[in-house]
Amino acid sequence: MFTSKSRLFLPLLYIVWSDDLLTADEFNTLSTFIKNQAWLSEDEKSFLESHLNLSIPPTRSDLNAWRKEIAEMVAVNPTFLSFYDLQLKVSADTSLDQYKSLFEKLEQDLGILGSEALLNFTKNNTNQTYNYETNSSFDVVKMTAILDGNVANAINEVKKVISSPEFAYENTTDVHVYREKVLEWCHILAQKNLGNRAYPKKYGGGENLAEYFAIMETLSFHDLSLVIKFGVQFGLWGMSIQSLGTEKHYEKYLNKVGKLELPGCFAMTETHHGSNVKGLQTTATYNHDDQTFTINTPTPKDQKEYIGNAAAHGQMATVFAKLIIDDTDYGVNAFIVPIRDKNNKSLSNVEINDCGLKMGLNGVDNGTISFHKVVIPKENMLDKFASVNKEGVFESPIPSDNRRFFTMLGTLVGGRIGIPRSALAAAKSGLAITIRYSDQRRQFGPEGGSEIPILNYRMHQRRLIPPVAKTYAFHFALRYLTQRYIDKKPEEMQEIEALAAGLKAYTTWHTTATLQECREACGGKGYLSENRIDRLKNDTEVYTTFEGDNTVLMQLVAKNRLSVFRKSVSEMDSMDKVSYVWNQTKVYLSERNPFATRDTSDTHLLDAAFHLNAFYYREHEITVSAAKRIKNLIDSGLNAYDAFNVVQHQMIDVAKAYLDRVVLEQFLHKIETIKEVATKSMLQKLAQVFALHKMEENRAWYLENNYMEAVKSKAIRKMVNQLCWEIRPDAVALVDAFGIPESCLAAPIAKKI
Amino acid sequence: MFTSKSRLFLPLLYIVWSDDLLTADEFNTLSTFIKNQAWLSEDEKSFLESHLNLSIPPTRSDLNAWRKEIAEMVAVNPTFLSFYDLQLKVSADTSLDQYKSLFEKLEQDLGILGSEALLNFTKNNTNQTYNYETNSSFDVVKMTAILDGNVANAINEVKKVISSPEFAYENTTDVHVYREKVLEWCHILAQKNLGNRAYPKKYGGGENLAEYFAIMETLSFHDLSLVIKFGVQFGLWGMSIQSLGTEKHYEKYLNKVGKLELPGCFAMTETHHGSNVKGLQTTATYNHDDQTFTINTPTPKDQKEYIGNAAAHGQMATVFAKLIIDDTDYGVNAFIVPIRDKNNKSLSNVEINDCGLKMGLNGVDNGTISFHKVVIPKENMLDKFASVNKEGVFESPIPSDNRRFFTMLGTLVGGRIGIPRSALAAAKSGLAITIRYSDQRRQFGPEGGSEIPILNYRMHQRRLIPPVAKTYAFHFALRYLTQRYIDKKPEEMQEIEALAAGLKAYTTWHTTATLQECREACGGKGYLSENRIDRLKNDTEVYTTFEGDNTVLMQLVAKNRLSVFRKSVSEMDSMDKVSYVWNQTKVYLSERNPFATRDTSDTHLLDAAFHLNAFYYREHEITVSAAKRIKNLIDSGLNAYDAFNVVQHQMIDVAKAYLDRVVLEQFLHKIETIKEVATKSMLQKLAQVFALHKMEENRAWYLENNYMEAVKSKAIRKMVNQLCWEIRPDAVALVDAFGIPESCLAAPIAKKI
Repeated sequence: MFTSKSRLFLPLLYIVWSDDLLTADEFNTLSTFIKNQAWLSEDEKSFLESHLNLSIPPTRSDLNAWRKEIAEMVAVNPTFLSFYDLQLKVSADTSLDQYKSLFEKLEQDLGILGSEALLNFTKNNTNQTYNYETNSSFDVVKMTAILDGNVANAINEVKKVISSPEFAYENTTDVHVYREKVLEWCHILAQKNLGNRAYPKKYGGGENLAEYFAIMETLSFHDLSLVIKFGVQFGLWGMSIQSLGTEKHYEKYLNKVGKLELPGCFAMTETHHGSNVKGLQTTATYNHDDQTFTINTPTPKDQKEYIGNAAAHGQMATVFAKLIIDDTDYGVNAFIVPIRDKNNKSLSNVEINDCGLKMGLNGVDNGTISFHKVVIPKENMLDKFASVNKEGVFESPIPSDNRRFFTMLGTLVGGRIGIPRSALAAAKSGLAITIRYSDQRRQFGPEGGSEIPILNYRMHQRRLIPPVAKTYAFHFALRYLTQRYIDKKPEEMQEIEALAAGLKAYTTWHTTATLQECREACGGKGYLSENRIDRLKNDTEVYTTFEGDNTVLMQLVAKNRLSVFRKSVSEMDSMDKVSYVWNQTKVYLSERNPFATRDTSDTHLLDAAFHLNAFYYREHEITVSAAKRIKNLIDSGLNAYDAFNVVQHQMIDVAKAYLDRVVLEQFLHKIETIKEVATKSMLQKLAQVFALHKMEENRAWYLENNYMEAVKSKAIRKMVNQLCWEIRPDAVALVDAFGIPESCLAAPIAKKI
Repeated sequence: MFTSKSRLFLPLLYIVWSDDLLTADEFNTLSTFIKNQAWLSEDEKSFLESHLNLSIPPTRSDLNAWRKEIAEMVAVNPTFLSFYDLQLKVSADTSLDQYKSLFEKLEQDLGILGSEALLNFTKNNTNQTYNYETNSSFDVVKMTAILDGNVANAINEVKKVISSPEFAYENTTDVHVYREKVLEWCHILAQKNLGNRAYPKKYGGGENLAEYFAIMETLSFHDLSLVIKFGVQFGLWGMSIQSLGTEKHYEKYLNKVGKLELPGCFAMTETHHGSNVKGLQTTATYNHDDQTFTINTPTPKDQKEYIGNAAAHGQMATVFAKLIIDDTDYGVNAFIVPIRDKNNKSLSNVEINDCGLKMGLNGVDNGTISFHKVVIPKENMLDKFASVNKEGVFESPIPSDNRRFFTMLGTLVGGRIGIPRSALAAAKSGLAITIRYSDQRRQFGPEGGSEIPILNYRMHQRRLIPPVAKTYAFHFALRYLTQRYIDKKPEEMQEIEALAAGLKAYTTWHTTATLQECREACGGKGYLSENRIDRLKNDTEVYTTFEGDNTVLMQLVAKNRLSVFRKSVSEMDSMDKVSYVWNQTKVYLSERNPFATRDTSDTHLLDAAFHLNAFYYREHEITVSAAKRIKNLIDSGLNAYDAFNVVQHQMIDVAKAYLDRVVLEQFLHKIETIKEVATKSMLQKLAQVFALHKMEENRAWYLENNYMEAVKSKAIRKMVNQLCWEIRPDAVALVDAFGIPESCLAAPIAKKI
């Protein structure tokens, strides 16, 4: 029989028998403890001992009866602070209070946490975690309007088309069926004048580049094979003619390209030359006799590879090849080369092979093309930047082959705007599916209560809220890039090209990482094709590679930043201009006083000026440090080539710091323009998450550079957690504001109940 | 005409006209500079100015002639240290040396780096980057023997089978064809007694669990659908009978299961209960009248989901369901339930649906199963841990339903060993393909020379060498876990379960991250299905979810570690045992003296004792800190449930720090046992990369905790770079040592030339 003293042990007995974390060791611990308590009688000791015999466990109903009895006491007074309070209550003898510290030590010896053990007996549905839910603080329609901005009409035009029954998803695993469906979709888009939106009006177009990018971005909510096929036809193929050709080419081709009457390819990459396009080996040899070019693929490794529209539908291609006149190599130029006839039969001397199954984008017919001495007329050279005159002499306003080639590439930078915008749309789709699901999916929860929406778990918020914030930030950064590109002046091209290369890399990496989180956060459901995350993930996987390998692009961005930095230093020295670098330097000094490095007040941590300063500081210092390191390596006798190799890792940081700063700055600029309070304050919160999460990511750097002390970096981590928690009720509204048509979300797990 | 003074400008003129990073601004800068030089005559100035007129560029042949002339000078004396040295050489007037500092300033104003600009004129094939190549320092066969260890025979047995023509890859996109092929492969494996290797000899097995795991691991070099189908049949289905059933079940089923005469399923997960398996809703209601159970699926959300072998081939299933006797719920138990007849027709009242297309593993027929009051005989209850006696009364040696359920789950922990070992094999395949390709693929390189293997680029090494080191580290950790599991004593089960859960999560995340790097590092080739990275990636993608969601598992590991920690603290207090924690604490103190926190000597940085101490220190401190934080939150009045939610993020760190320490420790233990010098020293280098790379990853934490100063964390980063560079010549041999059959690598890009 239980006495009041032995009843003191009842909750402990329940715990040791039921908790799956306790082992035989703990029985011994408890047993030894009992033996040593002089205030227990021998009867009480042996009674308790009898309940700790592993070979004679209590019955299941005994155990349940104990639990029931204890739980009823907890229900009457649910505010027990400690496990010992509960024990006392069970014993009903307050004089036993004197043994409190003994039992607290015992709890520790057993490895149990009293307050956690208490949860075994409580209904516990009064906790914060349980009672948190979706409750949005802003108007979704207003937020969508801010995101869509001045191209809302084009976006809505596209949404209407892709929501129509003709655009029902094609779920076949048969690549050929899928390809034909994608082509059919492209024809519909061409009919609706969505493909030629950027072409001159004279040739059927809309002369509206901003809308073209918006169209491509919005199509990305639907099917990414469609987007890439669309981008190959109207972007790469059509715009290569527009950018590299002249009036005679426009007149001959642009209308047909825009109507998809002339499907074509952009044949740049070769098997052995992808990132290093300057090294292309295909040749275009000028024949003086009949004023033609012979296009030739010297060896199989020089074949054009991964060419979209090549394997099935393309009739012509813009081919990049080294121009050869009289055995002199004039560098890479572009030529229009027919590859198939109207009946879709490949032309003689043009060898086309299918790239076969790919990880994704299987609705796009990528192929290889080899040219076996294919002869084309002279007029097929796209001759905006170089031409062969009547005498068969090479002419160009740009004497350097290198520079001419990069000038040509520069006109094609639009691809590096379209791709990240498409990638970001895919990230939006993934987040919309995952956050809606996480708001509805319940797993685990208090004893006896219903389970808890998984989005209430802090780790789940940590995985999904920062990507939402980044997605908003990148959205505005890409809009800024697009506008810069549309308004470009020649002297800005360097900067715009670097920004496009950088944002292409940064955004596509963001998409890859985000969709990875989405897949995992949706668990098994995220693995089923019906929920579309697999396709989003596999289709965008190659975005980090095409339009330039991300790692290579980041090196280019960093080189550009070092060059800008070197110039700015000399400007600073000369003191006749005051560059931002100089302005900022003064701010850094104030930020690095002992007060600021330790300031963990909420006001300071949430202050946009602090964020921007921290980003500028990092950008500046990291660039200076890379420049110095390169110089030191070279001064120490290292070949410059080797020196740049040694610092590659640091160069990536230079590029990242630059991009982080631009993205934050543009986000803040955008927020400044917003009047409406609720959306503004929501976006401010997202900007805070973006900024602090980035600072958390880079906290090692900030600590190494004494920009902050440990106390501050820890406070930033906690603040990110806190902001994620605060944003959680708005999470569903934030992804709804992306304005993705329900027909495109299509995932059963994303359906709103 | 050029004078010697104006010739000084020739290299600069070449650079401004040819470098694609320079813009119109730089022409102005150079032009202004020229105007300001009093030592130039007016003629010289106007001559130079004429070469800077953007509207009258030099001809292409002028430009090439300049380059040729300068390059010839460089060729004679390739050790120019600065760009100005070159300028002087070109001018042929050494007296102009006095203007050096002027020109150095000009270089900066132009934003060019002289030594980099010099590369325009050099053949530059004498640099280190260019001349680095594969050259292995150890014997691949010996390394393979170390990796294979005591199960080399089983591994070789499997390799022989999967290299046979019958195991040629099936590349269909037709799911049904693929599934039948996988089943056919499984039959071959069953015939060769590879499936039943762990079953008792009495029932046709080999009683060799170590070999079973080695078989599953080696099969993973071939096809992962095969591995999962194999694991479902022989592992989950067969071993659920072996672990949860008794002799009568063994006798009736094990032989047939092992021969694949009785294909079966493991039906645990339900649509609404995955991670929280304790919440399963399927019921098994006992019928006293005829001593049967009625298995029932109450609502569609309680259907069994993702069940392997269900959609096409399974004839029976181990079904987890709540046992109900006379309206009392006795918690989740396991029952054998027939689902299809011998002709593969699903039984009445059993509703099976296909899960449809998945992201990967499409050779496995996952399905949903709903039971509509299916009646099974009493003997079909797997009754090792609980049974219903003749009187219809529930009996169990474990009174707590909770504890009994987790004890049952504990016997199934083998799945959490098989999965990470399979995952690691997939990472090995990915790395083998990628490193072989990176060794052969050349891109970019010095002017006029051949291009450079991409594995010579530091960033590429950074992406691939640390994953190789981690893969070796995890390999030995998983072998250690396997051995612990085989030798398990009851009191070790807690620890082994936590270790298995943790290593399952950690290894599968490693595989996901590694294959992501592999895909990107192989560029476009990595996107083509023929190169197999897509399948490796998509098949293993769900490994982070099944056998327990990784994030949930990591929380469990952390909870276990906190419990262990609490016990160890009391042991420490009592001073009668000296635990590792205490031992280590003394070491930490010596590590945290000002000398150690700043020690950047190579000997120290490469010292295994330093690494292990740093890992122990982090594990200990992070665990203490999490425990304290939870206590503080609860003391401040937070509900324990909420408190654990708040620290979820920190809990993941607790688990990671523990796993890092175990992995490093076991790696070092393994290395100690090796005698042969070359392999030993190679493994030591890998352990150094593993340890330092982890410390680099966690450097923010080390800095925050004053375990090291900035100078040391920076030195660690450099050391990782250096080790990657040093290991590069061994990289191909290191992946060859994984011993993957060539027929399995199969990727055209992985072919050795």
